[in-house]
Amino acid sequence: MTMSLTPEYRYEYHKKSVERYLRNHVAIAHPRSLYMPCKYILSAGGKRIRPVLALLACEAVGGAMEDALPASAAIEILHTFTLVHDDIMDHAPARRGRSTVHTKWDESVALLTGDILLGIAYRELLATKSSRIQEILKVFTDGMITVCEGQAMDKEFETRNRVHVNDYLCMIEKKTGRLVSVSTEIGAMIGSGTAVQVQAMRRYGFYVGRAFQVQDDLLDIIADEKEFGKVIGGDLQEGKKTYLLLEALRRAKGKQKKALEDVFHKRKVARSRVAEFRRIYEETGAISSARAQIENDLHAAKEELAGLPSNQAQKTLLWFADKMLNRKY
Amino acid sequence: MTMSLTPEYRYEYHKKSVERYLRNHVAIAHPRSLYMPCKYILSAGGKRIRPVLALLACEAVGGAMEDALPASAAIEILHTFTLVHDDIMDHAPARRGRSTVHTKWDESVALLTGDILLGIAYRELLATKSSRIQEILKVFTDGMITVCEGQAMDKEFETRNRVHVNDYLCMIEKKTGRLVSVSTEIGAMIGSGTAVQVQAMRRYGFYVGRAFQVQDDLLDIIADEKEFGKVIGGDLQEGKKTYLLLEALRRAKGKQKKALEDVFHKRKVARSRVAEFRRIYEETGAISSARAQIENDLHAAKEELAGLPSNQAQKTLLWFADKMLNRKY
Repeated sequence: MTMSLTPEYRYEYHKKSVERYLRNHVAIAHPRSLYMPCKYILSAGGKRIRPVLALLACEAVGGAMEDALPASAAIEILHTFTLVHDDIMDHAPARRGRSTVHTKWDESVALLTGDILLGIAYRELLATKSSRIQEILKVFTDGMITVCEGQAMDKEFETRNRVHVNDYLCMIEKKTGRLVSVSTEIGAMIGSGTAVQVQAMRRYGFYVGRAFQVQDDLLDIIADEKEFGKVIGGDLQEGKKTYLLLEALRRAKGKQKKALEDVFHKRKVARSRVAEFRRIYEETGAISSARAQIENDLHAAKEELAGLPSNQAQKTLLWFADKMLNRKY
Repeated sequence: MTMSLTPEYRYEYHKKSVERYLRNHVAIAHPRSLYMPCKYILSAGGKRIRPVLALLACEAVGGAMEDALPASAAIEILHTFTLVHDDIMDHAPARRGRSTVHTKWDESVALLTGDILLGIAYRELLATKSSRIQEILKVFTDGMITVCEGQAMDKEFETRNRVHVNDYLCMIEKKTGRLVSVSTEIGAMIGSGTAVQVQAMRRYGFYVGRAFQVQDDLLDIIADEKEFGKVIGGDLQEGKKTYLLLEALRRAKGKQKKALEDVFHKRKVARSRVAEFRRIYEETGAISSARAQIENDLHAAKEELAGLPSNQAQKTLLWFADKMLNRKY
């Protein structure tokens, strides 16, 4: 049915399938004080990258995307659980243009909403029909544990005196990369991929996930504010230890190093100084380094696709890596 | 090896096996900021009722208790996850004589500790070797979701104007009962029990779990403070809506009803007035009602054991129900 779609349309089609599945399978049950915020946050939109990649990975190895729908929804719900809890920890007032759960309700509700989302995620995953269900659950659970480890590392970095850019890459591999690689790995398993195909899809997800996070850091400083949908320099203003800050710190000397160290230690930069830091990031080569990191990762991701059958889903995964390279938001 | 043990010794033996398993399988890994609190809370002791009942249920249907060890540890870890998150929501300073995780560290650490505990729980459960693994995981996940629903109901009750004692029973069935019935149900499944045996073990856990919670409410008012290890009347002082308060409210008239309604609405009772409320609970028949509720549940629990093979584990489950009836702490 979806054989002759353009990659763009195929992506949208899969995204809509996931959203329909989420709407139909996560009902407002009792107690409503718990299920209302679940519905609220699951319907908040977002790019749905993880579940769509899971569906594509399933098709890319020859499976039917419908078989991977419950698992792809499970992955999106798991991702949503991490957002709800992270937002509590970060005291974030808004996400995707809407109030966060702990702002709209309260922290207890948000805590419990995150918890039950995780239960619902497992419930949906368990609806998967596959002889490899135990293996699939192990990968999913490993992803869940790894995301928590990544978030704990991120929190540790906030108060650490030294963070190398390699520590940062290790953190985002856990916090962001692993869940994307879980998506493609599980998708390929449900599609009955061979061990080699499953590993290739896992690595594709890993590279894409890591590139995505570094690109998020980059867009925070170079994007068009309107297109990006977030304030430019937001990371600097929040004193976040990003790829750019850590890479610039490693490369800078003299006054520039001093300015970066101030950000690192004292945190938070006035909005008026964002342009100054953008210049430092350019002059130290941190921006070129981030670009190279992203390009290398996306190139590696595409190489992983070479061994797969050349079908529409594989083409969409190739297109997705290229699109990421040029994404503006 | 454990064939001729007394029930008491068998319980202790199984408890020690669970604790050894937890020590050996939950290691302090990186990041330490996350795994230190995990170790701390898992080694805090407690009665370990759920995992021991899981092991006994496995043996009662003819299985080997070693087969149920990973699952029993998973259940204890799941239970611990609920404690860590509940303590955040309740702002509880201490549990089992030690500082709670959010007090010893902070709320973010406690939030994340609970989250990763849940991941570790699934990881251990997935170490179970059983052809019924998908079914076992569904029961476990249903338990996890149900506990969250129970906790949300408990939170709702705090601000509700009317709570019937039947609402309360429904809440504790979810918040406490289900996880005990998950324990015995999963234990029996791992022991390859028949469908009838698994259902009997599930119901045994349900009755025991519900009785346990009502008894907790009762002991709060009638226990010996030293033996109980908690302050008598603590629930009244915290303004908790317990079985006793709701049942007394349903039965009381005049001045007594007024006093109970004050607790219900204004919450929190001075320590000096605990004896007065104990008298009201006695005179309205709330205490007799709680006793009858507990006795009926434990009687029903024991009846469920009648269809099982008469072995040492079955005898220990019988002994456990009797011991609960007479527990002082």
